Amino acid sequence: MLFQAKITVRVPPGTDMEKIKALSAEEIELAKGLQRTGKWLHIWRIAGKWANISVFDVDSVDELHNILTSLPLYPYMEVEVTALCRHPASIEGETAAL
Amino acid sequence: MLFQAKITVRVPPGTDMEKIKALSAEEIELAKGLQRTGKWLHIWRIAGKWANISVFDVDSVDELHNILTSLPLYPYMEVEVTALCRHPASIEGETAAL
Amino acid sequence: MLFQAKITVRVPPGTDMEKIKALSAEEIELAKGLQRTGKWLHIWRIAGKWANISVFDVDSVDELHNILTSLPLYPYMEVEVTALCRHPASIEGETAAL
Amino acid sequence: MLFQAKITVRVPPGTDMEKIKALSAEEIELAKGLQRTGKWLHIWRIAGKWANISVFDVDSVDELHNILTSLPLYPYMEVEVTALCRHPASIEGETAAL
Amino acid sequence: MLFQAKITVRVPPGTDMEKIKALSAEEIELAKGLQRTGKWLHIWRIAGKWANISVFDVDSVDELHNILTSLPLYPYMEVEVTALCRHPASIEGETAAL
Amino acid sequence: MLFQAKITVRVPPGTDMEKIKALSAEEIELAKGLQRTGKWLHIWRIAGKWANISVFDVDSVDELHNILTSLPLYPYMEVEVTALCRHPASIEGETAAL
Amino acid sequence: MLFQAKITVRVPPGTDMEKIKALSAEEIELAKGLQRTGKWLHIWRIAGKWANISVFDVDSVDELHNILTSLPLYPYMEVEVTALCRHPASIEGETAAL
Amino acid sequence: MLFQAKITVRVPPGTDMEKIKALSAEEIELAKGLQRTGKWLHIWRIAGKWANISVFDVDSVDELHNILTSLPLYPYMEVEVTALCRHPASIEGETAAL
Amino acid sequence: MLFQAKITVRVPPGTDMEKIKALSAEEIELAKGLQRTGKWLHIWRIAGKWANISVFDVDSVDELHNILTSLPLYPYMEVEVTALCRHPASIEGETAAL
Amino acid sequence: MLFQAKITVRVPPGTDMEKIKALSAEEIELAKGLQRTGKWLHIWRIAGKWANISVFDVDSVDELHNILTSLPLYPYMEVEVTALCRHPASIEGETAAL
Repeated sequence: MLFQAKITVRVPPGTDMEKIKALSAEEIELAKGLQRTGKWLHIWRIAGKWANISVFDVDSVDELHNILTSLPLYPYMEVEVTALCRHPASIEGETAAL
Repeated sequence: MLFQAKITVRVPPGTDMEKIKALSAEEIELAKGLQRTGKWLHIWRIAGKWANISVFDVDSVDELHNILTSLPLYPYMEVEVTALCRHPASIEGETAAL
Repeated sequence: MLFQAKITVRVPPGTDMEKIKALSAEEIELAKGLQRTGKWLHIWRIAGKWANISVFDVDSVDELHNILTSLPLYPYMEVEVTALCRHPASIEGETAAL
Repeated sequence: MLFQAKITVRVPPGTDMEKIKALSAEEIELAKGLQRTGKWLHIWRIAGKWANISVFDVDSVDELHNILTSLPLYPYMEVEVTALCRHPASIEGETAAL
Repeated sequence: MLFQAKITVRVPPGTDMEKIKALSAEEIELAKGLQRTGKWLHIWRIAGKWANISVFDVDSVDELHNILTSLPLYPYMEVEVTALCRHPASIEGETAAL
Repeated sequence: MLFQAKITVRVPPGTDMEKIKALSAEEIELAKGLQRTGKWLHIWRIAGKWANISVFDVDSVDELHNILTSLPLYPYMEVEVTALCRHPASIEGETAAL
Repeated sequence: MLFQAKITVRVPPGTDMEKIKALSAEEIELAKGLQRTGKWLHIWRIAGKWANISVFDVDSVDELHNILTSLPLYPYMEVEVTALCRHPASIEGETAAL
Repeated sequence: MLFQAKITVRVPPGTDMEKIKALSAEEIELAKGLQRTGKWLHIWRIAGKWANISVFDVDSVDELHNILTSLPLYPYMEVEVTALCRHPASIEGETAAL
Repeated sequence: MLFQAKITVRVPPGTDMEKIKALSAEEIELAKGLQRTGKWLHIWRIAGKWANISVFDVDSVDELHNILTSLPLYPYMEVEVTALCRHPASIEGETAAL
Repeated sequence: MLFQAKITVRVPPGTDMEKIKALSAEEIELAKGLQRTGKWLHIWRIAGKWANISVFDVDSVDELHNILTSLPLYPYMEVEVTALCRHPASIEGETAAL
């Protein structure tokens, strides 16, 4: 099941940026791992912002919530979830079936 | 170059729905063709709405604009474009390189 | 899997209200049937508005989308979907397990 | 009488998180107790957020306000209340009457 | 129980204004009657707008909804309901008790 | 002359709450006094919020501004003023004349 | 007593523009008359819009409402009223007193 | 050339209020001086807020920007500029010509 | 003097599109002429929308308003004007001086 | 390829302004350099604000993102990117071709 998450990171001034960099590095590894398992399908940077648009393929809303809240930078994130479904014009299923 | 387009279709009451259905069928074919050329990477339906989230891979902003405005339902669409770039956590390039 | 849908009905002036009433009656029957199957868990009227807050328990986002778009008044609806998950403070699972 | 409360928790950076965890644990117990008395009908987590959608069944608006402001995390909450009423399509009364 | 309703009337251009005037006259009588019964406590015009701020004292949310939807101009109204409760600084109870 | 003021109190985390409580107690006394003089007609708590809806009957906008800015919690308030006038459906004048 | 009114005119497509022009000419005469009486202090066009920012000096909110609703184009207007008062930095009173 | 500036002052809690008062006193003198030169035409307090609506008559946008950014409280201000032009209903030019 | 205008064209369904095309062709010629005189500095299409971002160099706000309202599609436009001034980082003056 | 970036700088109270001034001076040099290379086409100050409207001509969205995030004041910026394309009414290409 597919969900888009628009994730914006807001680090308040005065935060220890070394800590943020460490969390960020940890997050990148975690995100790569979740992409390899097929749970985190896509992640794109939004130009000009510390924000990304991600697409997740999960078994349940609870699984999505657990992934998002386990991200190291989650305490600094604002997340907007949008439930997605198959579009009649999409050929993604067809391609995969080849 | 990647762009997300959030496309919402608004058909005012009183519109000839047979015409809209015909335009919609035409659009689905056009969208499938653009997906096969690799210009239209993804299209997902937003649950509960006549709206989709699409990702395009185009050579220029002009190409994106031309694709969007050539869609049969364009006169009924509200389109929000977001410029995307590679995210440091993304493995999409790596996968494609295999 | 649980989703909240906030559903607002907007009937433009000049619409044939007899037709709307007939669609509305049809919708009430359909909603009652879906409640009996356990797909449509709750429906509450928002005070002062032609709008409701509903909670659905569906197997997939696609199922949710199909239910919503099959509603007789769907062409007059604005729908906002929110993905829900179990709250650690909820006792609903416990109660059901008794 | 039914009210929906959309409750968002915002803990500013720099807050003592041990204190927040303690308040949160206390709140979960309080919420479970209010569910058992039938005052707090439902509580669902909103995916990706420290927020919930709750439905209360109270005797008066004052009772609702007292419950909300007595929550241990109330000083960190933003609450939006929506007054609900019975929907003609609802079968909840019927079911309960069986 | 007290509720504020902010009521805005929007009559689309081209509407038969004689009909609107008749509905409006009917509504004024109905509103005066409800004020005399103590259900409709206050009604004030918002300067510069076809809109009012009203306060209702009702036994339930359902009663409020029934009053609002029975207003002759209801099909042209946008209504925002706010649930109110006693303020610790209010002396209204005290005055009434004298 | 009547004005509605929607008053929201925002106390930033870390504020000395004993000081806030003292200001709040002072404000309640001041508000009661102004109600007795007939300047502050109504004050209602908005359910779930540290906010109120008040109605003032003042001789001028300057008098209203002076009252609002003299409130002990004014530095923590966000105030939205709405100018009100007599509604043709109101019977308040009539009642008072009896 | 001073009030700012931000007045936006929205004429829906298909309206008889000869009628609008006639109402507009009538309104200009009425506005000039009210400026000469000192009730309508200022009127400025907002660049790029069919909208103006006006300042009125009236005896009461009711007088303001009556002026605004008597404007020939009022049925096409959206009006936002802001209550103004004397600013401590203003020299307008001083100048007038010379 | 005329511009409206809506100026809102936001002083974060914890600011040295003696310093703010000193800046404010300085600003009032500066504003009075600019009114006497005819650059700052009007300044009105918005009721209930630390905010004003001002009208400036300047030779260029750069002059306007320089005036605004030279205000002692500028670091605490949020400024919204609206470009104004002569309204066909205005008699201000006529009056001045007498 | 520089102003940005964000211009959005909204043509309601049912409009005679031949007429719109003729107005649009006329507007393009007018825009080109104004660019050649140096009044209309830039015009860029916003991707995915019938909208543009334009920059004007005019002698006064009145001149800007006259240009905008004389555009053939003005009745279908929503225009947002932003007053611009020289940025300390800009080299545009320097380049022109070479 | 053209992009507009609306850049707003927000420096929280309590920030070391000497540091901000140094970053700002550095940024002006960097911006001038990028203008000379033709990457940063325009930069205009928005009147009354610490904000600018810039137009960039870059080879890719990634290049745009890299430029923006390398700005010394980037941690204090809020950036809104708009993808632009050639407008049929523009003569900019023609002029350049002369």
